[in-house]
Amino acid sequence: MAAARHSTLDFMLGAKADGEAILKGLQSIFQEQGMAESVHTWQDHGYLATYTNKNGSFANLRIYPHGLVLLDLQSYDSDAQGQQETDSLLNKVEEKMKELSQDSTGRVKRLPPIVRGGAIDRYWPTADGRLVEYDIDEVVYDEDSPYQNIKILHSKQFGNILILSGDVNLAESDLAYTRAIMGSGKEDYTGKDVLILGGGDGGILCEIVKLKPKMVTMARRARARRIFTTCHEWHKQCRQNTVKVDWTRAMKTKVLIEDCIPVLKRYAKEGREFDYVINDLTAVPISTSPEEDSTWEFLRLILDLSMKVLKQDGKYFTQGNCVNLTEALSLYEEQLGRLYCPVEFSKEIVCVPSYLELWVFYTVWKKAKP
Amino acid sequence: MAAARHSTLDFMLGAKADGEAILKGLQSIFQEQGMAESVHTWQDHGYLATYTNKNGSFANLRIYPHGLVLLDLQSYDSDAQGQQETDSLLNKVEEKMKELSQDSTGRVKRLPPIVRGGAIDRYWPTADGRLVEYDIDEVVYDEDSPYQNIKILHSKQFGNILILSGDVNLAESDLAYTRAIMGSGKEDYTGKDVLILGGGDGGILCEIVKLKPKMVTMARRARARRIFTTCHEWHKQCRQNTVKVDWTRAMKTKVLIEDCIPVLKRYAKEGREFDYVINDLTAVPISTSPEEDSTWEFLRLILDLSMKVLKQDGKYFTQGNCVNLTEALSLYEEQLGRLYCPVEFSKEIVCVPSYLELWVFYTVWKKAKP
Repeated sequence: MAAARHSTLDFMLGAKADGEAILKGLQSIFQEQGMAESVHTWQDHGYLATYTNKNGSFANLRIYPHGLVLLDLQSYDSDAQGQQETDSLLNKVEEKMKELSQDSTGRVKRLPPIVRGGAIDRYWPTADGRLVEYDIDEVVYDEDSPYQNIKILHSKQFGNILILSGDVNLAESDLAYTRAIMGSGKEDYTGKDVLILGGGDGGILCEIVKLKPKMVTMARRARARRIFTTCHEWHKQCRQNTVKVDWTRAMKTKVLIEDCIPVLKRYAKEGREFDYVINDLTAVPISTSPEEDSTWEFLRLILDLSMKVLKQDGKYFTQGNCVNLTEALSLYEEQLGRLYCPVEFSKEIVCVPSYLELWVFYTVWKKAKP
Repeated sequence: MAAARHSTLDFMLGAKADGEAILKGLQSIFQEQGMAESVHTWQDHGYLATYTNKNGSFANLRIYPHGLVLLDLQSYDSDAQGQQETDSLLNKVEEKMKELSQDSTGRVKRLPPIVRGGAIDRYWPTADGRLVEYDIDEVVYDEDSPYQNIKILHSKQFGNILILSGDVNLAESDLAYTRAIMGSGKEDYTGKDVLILGGGDGGILCEIVKLKPKMVTMARRARARRIFTTCHEWHKQCRQNTVKVDWTRAMKTKVLIEDCIPVLKRYAKEGREFDYVINDLTAVPISTSPEEDSTWEFLRLILDLSMKVLKQDGKYFTQGNCVNLTEALSLYEEQLGRLYCPVEFSKEIVCVPSYLELWVFYTVWKKAKP
């Protein structure tokens, strides 16, 4: 499907806007393009001029009286020539506006055009809600599972990116994530007993088996089966040029296709204990109603059960969320104070390349017995 | 200055759009807001409906016949209540559109609203031209020098960011940049003779003096004086909580407020040689006309002169550009083959947190004499 390109050009004048003069000054530029004008005037709120072109493109010129002038230009399926015409129109408007506002220096801002409705969606907002455009050039995989939408999109710089229901999950560039959730290279996994909760993309498993642990158990929800299958292939590809992974050996580790709650409950009942529990299930919930939200309830349950299967000197690793979501992170830390046993924790801020935001990781351990 | 919020909501229908039905179906939602409608119809290009509100806000509904429906909503100086009203309107449109297009599943996309014309500009596109929004919450410094605009903006997660004429230069979070342009921790600077070209923000100087070099000479163009003054303060602040830097000692290194070309020429004539030359002047030019562009000419001159003052076993470090700008990087590598002496090079891709894109760094050295 062809897409629409939406360009913007903004003028922050240093003085009040003389709407009539600006409209009159710019009119000829749109007329030259054969665009038809229609103007709406507010008594106190300035002007909105709409210019429509026979080819289906249109422009909006919104003049706010105190000195803000915003131009929007939208055109559909524009080829290189169409894009040049758009740029040329924007250049002319910018030039003319400079002429018109000579007495009042101000700011001009032209953003990269937004591509809307294209086959390849490049806009995947950050966890803290900022608009960011990725350099996506290919849709590798896009399917709905019964639980979520699963996408693998190819980014020129980050490689394949796994996107679950619109959230950037992990990219091939993001070894920093896997390293961080394994303790940032400061742990010795040799001969250790490790439990991974979630980790459906297989990245942690793939890295941990290199470190000669005694046993790695991975409990991932059945719903993740499809991601795992998808990502197994992806990871195989992604490691091909760097590290040779013996996936057969990796698969000899225990991978339970089972919701992690019953697994944890069973282990707790059996008195089974691990040196490391790595929770890669989900980020800290953004919602800030821990008393009502079932995600928080799930999180507390997992934490409590994880502490039950963690050795007294064991460590629990997990991701937090974007460093900017301070309220959600504080709430998470509050939950840590409410577990069945007293725990301590430390946190680390890590740059995960494809996230385009800094990410917090937690290490939690049981407080030494007095 | 108050700002305008521009919200978008896009529908990629799975089938052709029945424009009349969509217009009719959505009409009541805008009418309920007291918005006045005006519709432009193309013979082959669908519809543009404009809705204006008495309070100065307006909406555009653009229906492209093959199945793309784009809604834009712009309102000025909206408070929390205004934002809620916008969200509620968008929700209603989304709901109604789902009803109207029941037979044809499609995609819906709602981006974070774009804030236009605010006192704090949060949009600083990447070197490869992508639209990204930063979490800027304060303008720390904003002034025009005779050569460029200098801004220091505060980002919640990256700390202060230095922005030169619209280009993100360096942030407090970006020790990765300084490390990379110093050889990524693989070099032993003890007792070495180092020449820094540029480095106006003082970051490299600040890190290198910790490594006990014999002498650090820094040649920065006079035009950078203002940045240096600005950044000195900034760096002092930025390091306060981490590393204590003895700036008096750092200042005992030789800092030449002089264009680096005459400095290099003088050193070359004197036969002065360095163990390391670190070129922190500028990124590889994005323009791809190295024969015409004076930036490329400047770059070649610097490279040639740098090789002249580099010891036979010395190393030259510099930044490239965004990893996606493959053409510009190839051209740079071509220039390396045209120097007065044969050289070899390696490159490294580094994630500099505040850049929101992966960055290439070069190490260049003189080919061993046969």
